[in-house]
This record gives sequence, C-alpha cells and structure tokens, in this order.
Amino acid sequence: MKDIPLKDIHISDGFWTTYINLVKDVVIPYQWEALNDRVDGAEPSHCIRNFRIAAGDEAGAFKGYAFQDTDLYKWIEAASYRLAAFPDPELERTVDEAVDLIGKAQQPDGYLDTYYIVKEQQDRWTNELAKHELYCAGHLIEAAVAYYEATGKEKLLDIACRLADYIDSVFGGEEGKLHGYPGHQEIELALLRLYRAKGNESYLKLSKYFIDERGQEPNYFNLEAQKRAEKLGWETVLQEPYYKLVKNGYEYMQAHLPVRQQQKAVGHAVRAMYMYAAMAGLAAETQDKTLSEACKILWENVTERRMYITGAVGSSEFGEDFTFDYDLPNDTAYAETCAAIGLVFWARQMFGIDPDSKYADIMEKVLYNGTISGMSLDGKSFFYVNPLEVWPEACRNRHDLMHVEPERQKWFGCACCPPNIARLITSIGKYVYSHSGDKLYVHLYIGSEAKIDLGGRVLRLKQVSNYPWDGNIKLTTAVDEPTDCTIALRIPGWCSGATIKVNGKLVDPDAAIVKGYAEIRRVWQSGDKIELAMPMPAERIQSNPKVRRNAGRIALQRGPVVYCLEEIDNGPVLADIRLPGNCRLETEYDSSLCGGVTVIKTTGVRTDMSEWEGKLYSKAGYGTVPAAVKAVPYYVWANRKPGEMLVWIREC
Amino acid sequence: MKDIPLKDIHISDGFWTTYINLVKDVVIPYQWEALNDRVDGAEPSHCIRNFRIAAGDEAGAFKGYAFQDTDLYKWIEAASYRLAAFPDPELERTVDEAVDLIGKAQQPDGYLDTYYIVKEQQDRWTNELAKHELYCAGHLIEAAVAYYEATGKEKLLDIACRLADYIDSVFGGEEGKLHGYPGHQEIELALLRLYRAKGNESYLKLSKYFIDERGQEPNYFNLEAQKRAEKLGWETVLQEPYYKLVKNGYEYMQAHLPVRQQQKAVGHAVRAMYMYAAMAGLAAETQDKTLSEACKILWENVTERRMYITGAVGSSEFGEDFTFDYDLPNDTAYAETCAAIGLVFWARQMFGIDPDSKYADIMEKVLYNGTISGMSLDGKSFFYVNPLEVWPEACRNRHDLMHVEPERQKWFGCACCPPNIARLITSIGKYVYSHSGDKLYVHLYIGSEAKIDLGGRVLRLKQVSNYPWDGNIKLTTAVDEPTDCTIALRIPGWCSGATIKVNGKLVDPDAAIVKGYAEIRRVWQSGDKIELAMPMPAERIQSNPKVRRNAGRIALQRGPVVYCLEEIDNGPVLADIRLPGNCRLETEYDSSLCGGVTVIKTTGVRTDMSEWEGKLYSKAGYGTVPAAVKAVPYYVWANRKPGEMLVWIREC
Repeated sequence: MKDIPLKDIHISDGFWTTYINLVKDVVIPYQWEALNDRVDGAEPSHCIRNFRIAAGDEAGAFKGYAFQDTDLYKWIEAASYRLAAFPDPELERTVDEAVDLIGKAQQPDGYLDTYYIVKEQQDRWTNELAKHELYCAGHLIEAAVAYYEATGKEKLLDIACRLADYIDSVFGGEEGKLHGYPGHQEIELALLRLYRAKGNESYLKLSKYFIDERGQEPNYFNLEAQKRAEKLGWETVLQEPYYKLVKNGYEYMQAHLPVRQQQKAVGHAVRAMYMYAAMAGLAAETQDKTLSEACKILWENVTERRMYITGAVGSSEFGEDFTFDYDLPNDTAYAETCAAIGLVFWARQMFGIDPDSKYADIMEKVLYNGTISGMSLDGKSFFYVNPLEVWPEACRNRHDLMHVEPERQKWFGCACCPPNIARLITSIGKYVYSHSGDKLYVHLYIGSEAKIDLGGRVLRLKQVSNYPWDGNIKLTTAVDEPTDCTIALRIPGWCSGATIKVNGKLVDPDAAIVKGYAEIRRVWQSGDKIELAMPMPAERIQSNPKVRRNAGRIALQRGPVVYCLEEIDNGPVLADIRLPGNCRLETEYDSSLCGGVTVIKTTGVRTDMSEWEGKLYSKAGYGTVPAAVKAVPYYVWANRKPGEMLVWIREC
Repeated sequence: MKDIPLKDIHISDGFWTTYINLVKDVVIPYQWEALNDRVDGAEPSHCIRNFRIAAGDEAGAFKGYAFQDTDLYKWIEAASYRLAAFPDPELERTVDEAVDLIGKAQQPDGYLDTYYIVKEQQDRWTNELAKHELYCAGHLIEAAVAYYEATGKEKLLDIACRLADYIDSVFGGEEGKLHGYPGHQEIELALLRLYRAKGNESYLKLSKYFIDERGQEPNYFNLEAQKRAEKLGWETVLQEPYYKLVKNGYEYMQAHLPVRQQQKAVGHAVRAMYMYAAMAGLAAETQDKTLSEACKILWENVTERRMYITGAVGSSEFGEDFTFDYDLPNDTAYAETCAAIGLVFWARQMFGIDPDSKYADIMEKVLYNGTISGMSLDGKSFFYVNPLEVWPEACRNRHDLMHVEPERQKWFGCACCPPNIARLITSIGKYVYSHSGDKLYVHLYIGSEAKIDLGGRVLRLKQVSNYPWDGNIKLTTAVDEPTDCTIALRIPGWCSGATIKVNGKLVDPDAAIVKGYAEIRRVWQSGDKIELAMPMPAERIQSNPKVRRNAGRIALQRGPVVYCLEEIDNGPVLADIRLPGNCRLETEYDSSLCGGVTVIKTTGVRTDMSEWEGKLYSKAGYGTVPAAVKAVPYYVWANRKPGEMLVWIREC
C-alpha cells in the first residue's frame, strides 16, 4: 500500500484550501514568531533560544519543557509540507537558517537534544521515562524527511541520520547497548519514515526494536530508575513527577505489557496513538501478523468503546489519559487535539494492514471534527482540550474543569498542539489516496488534482466537490494511454443510498463493494467521469447506552460533520433544550457564518422558565414552550461570542 | 423561641429509635474503640493517645490532624445525649475517665489543644487560619454543655469555662488582645450554648465578637501570616497548604467579607453551615436585624440554588466547597455528611428568627436523606461524601472521582463525620418541638413523649405515627389542668391535602395556617386527640432547568424521603432507564428490606441492548423493552451489594 507524494497532489477544495491558506499565511508565520518569543501576550516558547544556547550562539539557561525542541521540528515539518505545495524562497531561507542552527547544536557524536546539551550534558539517556530525548529525535527525523521530500535538500536529513545512527549505537538488543525505549513514543513512526526515505534497514530494525522491547520484563524504566536511585537516592527518584504518576504501573506510557499483549487503549492518549500508528506501520511493512492482530484489537477497543463522536480520545485530564470502556464524559473530557491528530496517523497506517473503509471513516470523522476544532478560524488561537459540553461558569469555578478553556488560547507553555495541527493540515493531501498494485483507493473527498503512479502507468485524477456540505463528488481521469485499473471509492459509514455513475451511466455500487470501497475496474480513458452522489440528510445519532452521560441524548450529524449547539444561537441553559423525536431537521448553507457552513435548524422545546423563579425543586409537570434551535458544526464552536456549547442534545 | 431539654423528651419511633439504638449499642462503643486505636483494619485515630501524651501519661509525638481532639469531644457530646435518654453508669464512668484525661491535659492557664501542647507549645494562636485551636475549643464546649445537661456533672463544664475564659482574655476588640477569629467556625455556636447554659454574658459577647470581626479589613489572616512570615520567611508561609488554598481570597473560610455583606454561600461547606447557624442563633438571641437579614439571604441562596435534593451541600471536592448557583453535579458531588448535619443546625436556629415552616421542611429533608445516608444500617461504616449518582467503575478509575467511595468505610483519618452523625442522632429529640410564649411548634413527626413547660404550665404531648412511611400522625395531650395554648403543626412543603381532626372533628387547616404551621388554639384537656392526616403519594420531582445535570430527569420522593435506584434491584446502566411521564408509581412497604422501608415500583423502559453489540454510535431509532423499576430510599443505598446508584432518573 503506497501513498502519493505530497508534491503530486494539489489541493483545491472549498473546505481545506481555506485551512491550508490559513496555515500558510497565518499559522506558520505566527508560530515562527512564537518560537522566537516575539508574540505579545503569549507564553514564551524559549524554543529557538534553547537551540541558540546549545549551539553556543548565546549564553543562558535552558527553559521550557524537556521536549521544547519538538515545537521547532513540528514547525519545520509543517513548513516543509507547505513548501511542497507552494514553493516560497523566503520561507525556505528561514527553514534553512533553522536547519543551520540545529546543525550547529548537534554534538560531534550526533547527539541532539538541547535540554541535555544545555542543562545536563553528562546525564544523557538516564531518564527515558520522563525526559523525551527519543521523542525529540523522532520529531527531528519527521521534519528532516518532510523537508527533504519537499526541497530535495539533504542537510537536515543528514543531521537526522547522524542522530539516528548514533541512537542505533546506543539502543538495541546487542550486549553493551541500552535495552530501552522511549517514555513518549514517536521515534518508532519516524524511523519507519526515515527507512522509507533512505532505504536503510537499520532504521526499520531500530523502530521494530523499540516496539518489540517495550513492556518486556524486567521493565526498562525500573532498571533505569534503579540506576538513577544509585546516584540520587530512592527518595529523590520517588519524588520525580513521572515516577509518582506511574506508581501503579507503566500503563501511562503503554509499557505495562509487551505491545502484542495489549488489548485495551490505556494511558496517555497521544503516546498511545503514536505507538499504535507505529505498530500498524511496522506490521504492514514487515508483514507481522501478531502485530497486525494487536493493532486490530486496540482499534476496536478505541473506536467501539473509548472515542468521542468527534473522533477525540482521552477521557481524563489526569494523565491526559484513556480511562475505561464507555467512560466518555463530555464536560471533563480531555480530548487533546494532538491525540485526535494521532488517531488520523493511526487510521492511515491501519489501512496498510487491512484495506477496510472503517479506518478512513474514522480518519474522516476526526479530520472534520476533533482535530480542526483545535484551531480558531483565524488561525491565531488554539484548543489543547476539546470538550463536547461547555458551561463557561463551571470552567471558571470548578477545580475539576480547570483544564477546560471556554475560549481558545494564543499559545501554550506546552505548545504541542498548534504546530501539530499545522503539520496535519499542510499534509492533508497525503490522506486522500493510497494505492496498491493497480488499485487506487479514494479515501477522502477533497477537491484536488493528483498524479498517481500505478506501477509505471500514470493516472491523473481530478476531484471536484463541495464536500462536506454536499455529497456530490465528481472525479475526472486523465491518462497518457488507456489504463486498466481499479478506482475504489470509499462509501462512508454515515452514508445510505449512494449512487455512482461512470460517464453518466449508473453502476451498482453494492455489487462492487469490497470492505466499504466501491471498486470500479475498467480501462480508463482521459476524460472519463465518475459521479458519486451521497445523500446527506441531517441525522440523529445515539450512543451506546453504556455511555451514561449521553443517555437520552442525540447528536446531530450531517455527512461527516458533527454539530453542536452554542449559546450565541440558542440562549443559555442548552441542557434544557429538547428535540422531539419527530422534529424536522432543516439544513441551510450560510455563507456568512464562520467562513461558510451548513447549519441545522429545527423547532425544539424548552421549559417555561417563568414558572421556576425562586424554585430549586418542585413537583413535575412544568409547562414547555417551543424553541427555535440552530446547530452549527462542532469544529467552528467558540469562534464567536463565548458561551455554553453542547453536542449531545436531549431528545424527547 | 425555646427548645425542650433532651431529658424531657423520650423518643419512641419506628424510624428513629432504630437509629438511636444503633448509635447507643453499636456506634458509641465502636467509636470509643476507634478513638483508642483498637479497631482492626481501620485507620488509627490517635485521638486518646494525643490526650495521654498531652496529659503527661505517655511519651510520644502528636499524630493525626490538628483537630483530632474534636473526635473525642463529639463522642462525649453523643454519649451525653445518649445518657440523657438512657442512663448507663458504665458509659458514664467511661466518659468521666475521658473528662479526667482532658482535665489533666489542660494547661494551668486554661489552654487546651493537644496538637499545640504536644507539638508546638510556644506557637499557640499563631495560625488560626489553619490550626483549629478555636474549632477544637468549640467542640469541647459543646460536649461540656451536653454532659452537664445530661448528668448535672460540672467538671467538664468547668474545664470548658476555664478554656473559654482564657480565650476571652486572648481574643477581643480591646487593645492588647488578638483581633482574630477561627479559621474553622464552630466556637461561635458553642459559646452561645455555653452562654445559654451558664448565663455568663461574656460568652455571648465573645461569640458575637468572632462573628462581627470576621472578614473585616485588614484581614486578620493576612496579619497573622505576616507575623509567621517574619519568623519563618514568606517562602515557607506561601507553601503552607491553607495559604495555597486561599490564595484567591478567604472565601474558603467565609472571611472574604464581613458576614453581614455575604450574600452567597461560598467556601468550605461545613465551615459555612456552622457559621450560618451561629449567625442565626446570635441574631435571635440579640435581636440583631442586620444579622437576621444576612441569614435569610444566605438561606435563600443555599436552598434555592446550591443544595442537592437530599439536603446535601458542597458541590466540589476541591476545598469541600460550595461552587456557584445551580452547579449541582450528582457524581462529583462532595455533599459531606458533616455539612448536611450543619444544615440541620442552621435550620433549627433560623426558626428562632423567623417561625416559618420552610426551615423545618429543609431540616426534615436533610434528616431523612443527606445525613443518615452517611452511616450504614449496621452503624459500622460511614460515608464522608454522599453523591447522588455512582458508577463504581468510574470511582475506581477516574481521578476526579477519587473522593467518591462506592462503599462506606470503617473509619477515616479525618473522622469528623462518624461522631458528628452520632451526636445528631442521639440529640434528635431536640429538633421535634420548640415553643414561644404559649405556642408550641411541632416541627417533626417523630414518635415520642414530651413534657413541655409553657411558661409554668406543663403540657405533655404524645406523638404516635409510622412516619415517614405513613402520613397519619396522632398526638395526645395531657395537662395538669386545662390549658389555653396553641399547638402549631407543621404542614410539610411536600404535602397537599392535609386534614386535621381534633377529638375526631375536622378543623380547617388552611384557615389556621400561619407561615406553614396549622395553629390550633384551644383550652387543652388531658386526652385531647389531634389527628393529622397527610396524603403521601410517591411523586416525581423536577429540578430547576438551570441545574444542567438534572435536565430531563426526575427524582422520586414520597413524603420527606428521596428515592434512588440501585443496581442490585435494577441491573447495571441505570442511566438507560426511563420512566414514562404517565407511569404509575406503586408503593409497597417491605419489612424485610433494610430494616423496613417503603419501596416505589413502576414499569419503565430500557434500550434493547442486543442491538448495540459492538457499536458505539449509531443512527437513532433503537428498540426499547419494558423494565420493572424499583426505587429504594436514598439513605439506605449501599447497604447491600455494591453497584451503581442513581437519584435523578430519566423521564420520557
């Protein structure tokens, strides 16, 4: 299963182009300023400054988190994707300067992590549990591969390879090497990318080693802690924040069991997603059946028991963790933007081991809901946490909701999410298609022109649509010569009654459906037209009754887009609004709202509040009044006046 | 407004006698063992041991909380009430030994607090913010008054007076005295009791001083902290747990404003309740109109906006605090047993400033629901926290529910609640009646025989009922000579259609209702019979729609008793159960269940779960199945098999 290079797809989509332009014109420049501590009123990043200190260009102390370097790496990755689509000499020069700085900070042996270089040079590799050296290396590698693929420039790739080679000399199964693995997974997936870019088997082997060794007994983090304890004393080690966090075991970083024995998604959601993505990628790359099986079991656990309807994951602020089956509280949700992004990565890798539309269904769900909700429509502020129900007064007053911001923030001390969303959006083209042999899979309906190399035969495909507001998709082929191959169109799980026409002639999609993709095989000519028509009514969605908090409630969804109520449209006390089971859901495209969105309107019911003055409890039987109800796409919430927000609406 | 002495009322009630006997035969002996660290498997109390060390009888270090002494004081108070009703030489001997020990620990100047005596003798009165010296003194005073009233013995009262006199020499408005007040209110109410017992005006004055001075500027806790900082350094002071807690102001201990300016119930709920009770008591005692007004405003805020339907208060675990209007989450509730008990105290004092049935209505609500839920039916285990919705798996797994125990615990390191509930139950007789001039108020319907001195004329009143399971109350009078006076029967707020007969003849209750009490004035003869008949159907209660979490839900209530669903009766996933608005609520007394309770039965609806296998979200329209639903009184929950519990049930 292969992707198409970003350079070979040009996105031209009513929905995503807006985001891509925003990231290109606002987010990437803004984040560069943020990395350089030049944004007024935002928490300083310290990131570039740390590199300058490590490079010897500046004196000073390391500041920020141990993983602060990754903000720059993720920014370079995003900038690279952007350069792949839109060459820009000025931006490229800025990246080159950053690359020079990174190179200057790299140590003679290849080591690179400004936290240790500046702060604790002698303590390298003594605390993988907490200190993120391998995590930082992973993001450097991803940035390097992206920049190389975008520009052909090898300098950053060389830096990354030197670091990877050095890490390979430190970690591994061989005697004398550390039998360890990262406290925060990321390098596994990155090494796989590096292997795919460079073809060097040692990177694949090292990635596999990190995955295979994880959770084996004796647990590496215990051995490592013992060594720290010999130096610092156990009392000191026991006071380390991470050591306190993992006192009940290493579920937090998914190192409690060998990965093939893990059957439930536990611990820190971002770590889990990055690891599962790497597992799936490795399973596909190495045809590892037991690893594939573990991935499928975990996928089922997440998507059938531990995922919000927006595709967000992580039900608890404590540990930013998964909790347990069906525990999906809407207000105290963590639902970190980065974890949603990680689920996109994972879904894409799963397709490599099992070409089933259920993976792209989830990928689509997360892309249109739980990821982009993390960024404001002007690209200037961000959510780390993406709850499904917000009562601003509660966020301000309740200690157990301190993590929930009712408004997006300019920047964070721990700014993992903003650059992560930037790299996702700029690389959205990677998720549209994949191909295997002579079969091309269309996963996402995103307006674009792509060039696909199907084993030497070039197929050009143009997609035009007004998705996700409209379910009519037009695809036009162009070929150098008539080409016999299969185009497999995903029929989304949300869709009933899709029809497909080829050159105006209906084909029976049901007859051709293979694992959720309608496969159309023919000898394609230039100018062949495929028309996919997906009815897109607004629908009521229920959740499994075991999700206690959603009992008696429905969510509104249209196509892949999940809706919510906002106070600005519906007044306060959204919880009081009820939608009768038979109320008619009207849809209406509003070009003036939030850059153009389809809204859902209906008439619901509210309590006649005039009867409740001065009463807290009273015998049932209060009057109701009709209420105009307007729902907007979840991802645009909190872009107007702050107020209450609610996804799961009462049904009566 | 006067109470009747506990010695003048004998409780003989199907409901409360069980509890009283339990406290008499199980709880008081058990807690004595606990105070002496002799209960296997329970957290040690250290309480008696601290006194022995302070008395010089034993060597060792102080252990436990700074307020550990109060566990003994509250136990003596409970034992005293029990002795008032049931003389018991052996128990009295045990108390006398404890009194001797307390006397031996008291310092020559009257000071008494084992924490400081053993640990920091030189630092007395340096940290009222956190260290509870005045709080402990308050509980000693209450115990002393209770023991004196029960036995006539003055030794403990003398100890208390010496301590109170000493405190009066330390605190007050005069120059050279500390212009301070307690970090945890309690002594204010206690001094009022001491004043009423001894008639010494200085105790009333000191109580009033503590209330009046509270929250004045400059804030005493700031001044005090400044002094500690001069000695310890600000860095140390800023690290003190209480100082961290109150960094946003002194709401936590209701010292953010002078009490007369406080309009919302804020901060630690137990502190608030004890303070409001003292404010109301002082307002009545001193005819202080501005203080009365503040009490009424706070009462309205609590009972109309910040109180659970069980009468529990305190919506947040952080700070064990009140939060904000209509914030009453059921699962994360704190709803501390002690705070509910404090609300009983407050309600009783409010009646002294405003003879309105609304106060006794709340008192009754709390007594039959949110207080006794704190103790198991065998008297051996206790809830500190009384949530209205429990999902045990969530309590075990979610960090924001760590404070919620799905099963009662044997004892707590901070064991304020168990002895508090013991003293409440043993003194329940104090809450049944009060009188003013020639008017006798009947607040509670509790089987009893009482002797009431109405200004020299003795009225004996016998109450017989099967309350709260039955609303038919019989009262019989006995007088030495025909007595012209008013008997005012509370017509509870939950009751519609009450009828009253006197000697078999209907009286029109509506005509005689004054602020919720049906006043019956006549010349009472011995053997006069009053029959109050209160229809007691099971009812559906709604909450104000602004309580978001209860939207679309009803609670079941019958008479004063609030009901809940338990998993043992209804299976798991209680949230899925719906009660149709027209379903018939059948009631049935089950003598074999939890010592005899009336249960509510009906037929509700559940989702057909067979259709949901392997699905998390799906288009609405799932089938339902009828479900037999059985609700039990809230206060008996968690006395059988552990499982889910739910008060607010979905209505459809």
